[in-house]
Amino acid sequence: MTDTWLTTLITNTPQEGFELAITLSRRGVKYTQPDVDVLKKLRPEYANDAADLTAASHVIATNFQTVAAANNYWRK
Amino acid sequence: MTDTWLTTLITNTPQEGFELAITLSRRGVKYTQPDVDVLKKLRPEYANDAADLTAASHVIATNFQTVAAANNYWRK
Amino acid sequence: MTDTWLTTLITNTPQEGFELAITLSRRGVKYTQPDVDVLKKLRPEYANDAADLTAASHVIATNFQTVAAANNYWRK
Amino acid sequence: MTDTWLTTLITNTPQEGFELAITLSRRGVKYTQPDVDVLKKLRPEYANDAADLTAASHVIATNFQTVAAANNYWRK
Amino acid sequence: MTDTWLTTLITNTPQEGFELAITLSRRGVKYTQPDVDVLKKLRPEYANDAADLTAASHVIATNFQTVAAANNYWRK
Amino acid sequence: MTDTWLTTLITNTPQEGFELAITLSRRGVKYTQPDVDVLKKLRPEYANDAADLTAASHVIATNFQTVAAANNYWRK
Repeated sequence: MTDTWLTTLITNTPQEGFELAITLSRRGVKYTQPDVDVLKKLRPEYANDAADLTAASHVIATNFQTVAAANNYWRK
Repeated sequence: MTDTWLTTLITNTPQEGFELAITLSRRGVKYTQPDVDVLKKLRPEYANDAADLTAASHVIATNFQTVAAANNYWRK
Repeated sequence: MTDTWLTTLITNTPQEGFELAITLSRRGVKYTQPDVDVLKKLRPEYANDAADLTAASHVIATNFQTVAAANNYWRK
Repeated sequence: MTDTWLTTLITNTPQEGFELAITLSRRGVKYTQPDVDVLKKLRPEYANDAADLTAASHVIATNFQTVAAANNYWRK
Repeated sequence: MTDTWLTTLITNTPQEGFELAITLSRRGVKYTQPDVDVLKKLRPEYANDAADLTAASHVIATNFQTVAAANNYWRK
Repeated sequence: MTDTWLTTLITNTPQEGFELAITLSRRGVKYTQPDVDVLKKLRPEYANDAADLTAASHVIATNFQTVAAANNYWRK
C-alpha cells in the first residue's frame, strides 16, 4: 500500500481513539488480504458468527491498548 | 456511529472500570456488526457455548487492562 | 449486576492476587451469561476439554497481569 | 485451594522465572478443574495436539510477561 | 536464518511502524515454516478465511504494541 | 528440565531478541510436551496449517514484547 493512512496515534477523545483502534484492526486484515472483493465476500461470514465477532473485538481491544497508552489515557 | 458513548476512561471504582471494560468489549462487536437484530440472534449462540464465553471474558480482561492502567489501578 | 464485588485490586500476597484474577475471569463470563443455571450446565463441558481449560488459564493470566501491576508485583 | 503455593514473583534467574510462569499457567488450569484425575486423563489429549501445545505456550508467554516485569527483567 | 532483517525498531512514522509490525508477524510465521513453497500454498487458504484474517490482524496488533512503545508512540 | 538454557533476556540486536522470543516460544511447548519424538511427529501437522502458523507467530509476538521491553527496545 502506498497511500498514507496513519500519521499519528493521538486523538482528541477516547472514543476517537477507539475508532482509530478499529481502523488499525481493519488495516491489519487489509494488509494480509488486499483484495477488496474477497474481503466483501467474507464479511457476511464473520459478521454473522459469534466467535468471529468476539475475535474481532479482541483485536480492537489490543489496538486500543496501544492507542490509549499513546494518548496517556486521555487523562486531564 | 455518530452517538457519543465514550468520553473518559476514568471511573470511581475498579468495579465501574470492569463494567466499562465490558462496554468497550461490546462496542467492539457492535462496530463490526452494527445490525442489532443480527446481534440479538447470535446472543443465544455464544451465551450458551463455553469456549465463546471464555473468549468474551478474554476480551473483557484485555480492555480491563487498559481501563485499570488509565485509572492508575485505583491506588489510594 | 447491582451487588458490589470489586472494591480494590490490592491484595496482601501474589497468591491472593492470582485468586482475584480468577474472580475477574469468572465475572467476565457471568456478565456475559448471567443465568447461573446455564453456567452450571456448561461447566462439565469446558472443565473436561483441554483447549477450554487452556483458554481459561489464558484469561486468568491476562487478568493476573493487571492485578500484579496494580500491586507493583508485591515487591518488598 | 488452601495450600500456599505462591509467595513471591521474584526469582534468581530468567529461567526460574520462566518455570514460575509455567507453574502459574498450570495453576490457572487447576483452579478451573481441580480434579487431578480429570487433568491426567486430558493430558495425552492436549500434549499430542499441535494447536493445544501452541495455546499452552501462549499462556506461559503471558505469565512470563508478568514475572519478567516483576523482576525488572533481571537486568544487572 | 542468517540474513539480517531487523536492525532497529525505530521508524519515522506510525504507519512505517505498523508495516514493521506486519514484517515481524510474517517473520514469526517464516521462522516456524521456512519453506517458501509451503507458505505460498497456504496463502490462499488463510487469506480467504475470515477467522484466519482476524487472527493475522491480532498478531500484527500485538507486534504493533511493541513497535509503538519502542517509538514512544511517535509523540512529538 | 535440568539444563540451563536461559541466563539473560539481554541481546545485542532486535533480531537476536526476536530469535530469543522464538526460543522462549519453543521452550513453552517443550516444557508441556518434553517427548522430542512426539514433537517431531506433530511438526508437519502445525507447520502446514495456516491457523497454527499464525498462532505460533502470536506466541512469538507475545514473547518478543517481553524481550524488547527487557532491552529497552534497543534504543540507542
